[in-house]
Amino acid sequence: MSAPAPWVSIPEGSLFPFANLPYGVFSPPGETEAARRRLGVAIGDLVLDLGGAATATASAHAPLLDQPSLNPLMAAGPAAWAGVRRTVQSWLTDRRRQAAVAPHLYEVAGVTLHLPFEVADYVDFYASEHHAINAGRIMRPGGEPLSAPWRHLPCAYHGRSGTVVVSGTPVIRPSGQRKPSADHPPTFGPTERLDIEAEVGFVVGAPSPLGHPPGIGAFTDHVFGVCLLNDWSARDIQAWEYVPLGPFLGKSFMTSLSPWIVPLPALHAARVPPPPRRPTPMSYLRDDDDPWGLDINLEIRLNGHLISSPPFATMYWTAAQQFAHMTSNGASLRTGDLFGSGTVSGPHSGQRGSLMELSWGGAEPFSTPDGRLHTYLDDGDEVVITATAPTGDGGFLGFGEVRGQIVRGWLMGGNPAERRGLSANQAPLP
Amino acid sequence: MSAPAPWVSIPEGSLFPFANLPYGVFSPPGETEAARRRLGVAIGDLVLDLGGAATATASAHAPLLDQPSLNPLMAAGPAAWAGVRRTVQSWLTDRRRQAAVAPHLYEVAGVTLHLPFEVADYVDFYASEHHAINAGRIMRPGGEPLSAPWRHLPCAYHGRSGTVVVSGTPVIRPSGQRKPSADHPPTFGPTERLDIEAEVGFVVGAPSPLGHPPGIGAFTDHVFGVCLLNDWSARDIQAWEYVPLGPFLGKSFMTSLSPWIVPLPALHAARVPPPPRRPTPMSYLRDDDDPWGLDINLEIRLNGHLISSPPFATMYWTAAQQFAHMTSNGASLRTGDLFGSGTVSGPHSGQRGSLMELSWGGAEPFSTPDGRLHTYLDDGDEVVITATAPTGDGGFLGFGEVRGQIVRGWLMGGNPAERRGLSANQAPLP
Repeated sequence: MSAPAPWVSIPEGSLFPFANLPYGVFSPPGETEAARRRLGVAIGDLVLDLGGAATATASAHAPLLDQPSLNPLMAAGPAAWAGVRRTVQSWLTDRRRQAAVAPHLYEVAGVTLHLPFEVADYVDFYASEHHAINAGRIMRPGGEPLSAPWRHLPCAYHGRSGTVVVSGTPVIRPSGQRKPSADHPPTFGPTERLDIEAEVGFVVGAPSPLGHPPGIGAFTDHVFGVCLLNDWSARDIQAWEYVPLGPFLGKSFMTSLSPWIVPLPALHAARVPPPPRRPTPMSYLRDDDDPWGLDINLEIRLNGHLISSPPFATMYWTAAQQFAHMTSNGASLRTGDLFGSGTVSGPHSGQRGSLMELSWGGAEPFSTPDGRLHTYLDDGDEVVITATAPTGDGGFLGFGEVRGQIVRGWLMGGNPAERRGLSANQAPLP
Repeated sequence: MSAPAPWVSIPEGSLFPFANLPYGVFSPPGETEAARRRLGVAIGDLVLDLGGAATATASAHAPLLDQPSLNPLMAAGPAAWAGVRRTVQSWLTDRRRQAAVAPHLYEVAGVTLHLPFEVADYVDFYASEHHAINAGRIMRPGGEPLSAPWRHLPCAYHGRSGTVVVSGTPVIRPSGQRKPSADHPPTFGPTERLDIEAEVGFVVGAPSPLGHPPGIGAFTDHVFGVCLLNDWSARDIQAWEYVPLGPFLGKSFMTSLSPWIVPLPALHAARVPPPPRRPTPMSYLRDDDDPWGLDINLEIRLNGHLISSPPFATMYWTAAQQFAHMTSNGASLRTGDLFGSGTVSGPHSGQRGSLMELSWGGAEPFSTPDGRLHTYLDDGDEVVITATAPTGDGGFLGFGEVRGQIVRGWLMGGNPAERRGLSANQAPLP
């Protein structure tokens, strides 16, 4: 990062330094309609309107940047990504550009942030050994916590891409079937075990054709950037439904995404060796030459109180391995494919990425400094996940936040007109 | 079906009678580019260009019909669907329209058929009791074949919507990890247990908002039509990977779809009572008033030989129940959501919808009239799934076909330019 200093004023310690420059989609103040969405890059406390700046500077990148979604830029591939990043860096450092570019900066506090891309397929992995062992012990007590293939391949399932939403979207408590105990019949009602999963998400830009596995070495040719996600989970619904087809309604009600996508090159200084893997991964998963461990530190806050600090560097399977595995059967990639790391949990109790683990399946409530005891989420609870990574110059960059507050569910059924008239305090019917 | 007779000549016994009128997307002869895609309705041996006919007749529906994909029509909702169907019926029966409409008819044999809509989320159910019991006995011998929740809820998982392709697309044999036996380490290579799953697919047209379960009574408000699908499955990859997150790479390499979407009203005469369900389904799954069993009879042909005739009327869970369950947690629906019934298997051995069942896990090869013995699919094998349903006037309608031929896989890795240069006879690397 030997680039010249930017002319934009960046507050000391900002998590959006010049080394970051993450991409998002925003509406300026007073322009919240989808029709006025535009691409932005975060810098300090500001967001730069990329379409406006590209037009003002007559940039050749304007067709990719004067857009309401990141998808066209993401689809353009790594050479275009590098070119746009260099261009944005030059806009923000070249004082001769300042007069043309500065009018396109907005205070980020005043804009509305949107889901930054159209999600194609959403895949969720299960790649933290600590999380998988904790979850196995809690959900299958007495059994072997890790399934047989876990150390041979990165386990994953497809989630519902239609319910991936941007940070800040209210989390409507889902209803579903759950079985209170072994000798009790299943019942239907609002989940009583609403949980979080703190994850890191990877966003595919350049597509790949059906039947042509790109291989682990093509990770940076296809993956555009990195974000945070909260894979909200209803543990009681999940526990009852998941054998043998895996999680479905226990997950599909909502997944929240951070509004900023950190470009992969911004994480160069955060690369670290992954933990040792035994047995040695098969050749298509071998990453000895070019490992993609990442020193990203997550923080989870419940109603403003820090409750966990999961270290992403402890993940057993890296994103590059997940990328190679996900496509090893010839499955194609589309622009907008999103894959989540799986819950990030470290080896220590203060590093667990879900409330299921933090409260050990609800059996060991934990307290916050306001004196409240917690197991799963109550109505009104708000969860915020943030993360930082080193920039190599002694500083850090951030990923924005994934925020969500729990609200009560709605009535099922009735015709659409009736449903539109319902208020949020009506409970679901059994 | 007391409508006047169409002026179009329809061959006796055609599965595309006036009572059918399924929707698809096609390119006329010599116009295979995506830019020239247009909506069509099949009638007899012909396909009507809906955009052309709508323009020629100055129809108010032209904005929905002069399109390269069904998505805009699907999104418009049930009143628009009914209006368009009445309009098409009037075009094909009103002789005063014949001069304007007839120039927009093409021989279906000469056109190219495309995937008729953009798939949003793809959900695959597991709703045949006979299939679930067979699969449980084969994959988990000695255990209880049905999982605990199976009779309480329609089990399902999300599949990969990016690899849903139209009938006729070659099926590239996937590679993956599989474990030859309990005392043998896993290996990587081309699947040795490539299978089919003959299913009926349901296509969502009108969307629903997050957090507002539409309920079972809203099935016809949201579901646009019905098609066939072949959920190709690599049983060895699936068996090794599927605990605890369900099927992933064993399924995600490809799912083939029939090119015609039969409108739900065309199946009115095919509605039959579902089989008895015990225990009685919970209220959100109760369908006593308006059951959606469907008398659709599937046929599976392997290299031209009929090998199975699965009866859809035997399915335990109906599409309306699947629709209600899939949204019971508040998950939203998008235009283009596709849900599959799960493999259709009847109670008899000649009614099984997968080769796993027809060959009992490969242990009992079956023969075709050409003298060949079969278990799973060999390279070069071709599978065609078709289906018919009664139209209520003594005739039948068809769903087109889902066709796919197995070809060898490709080399993994290398850069994209190298990969483009590979020929299809190069085997995947371990």
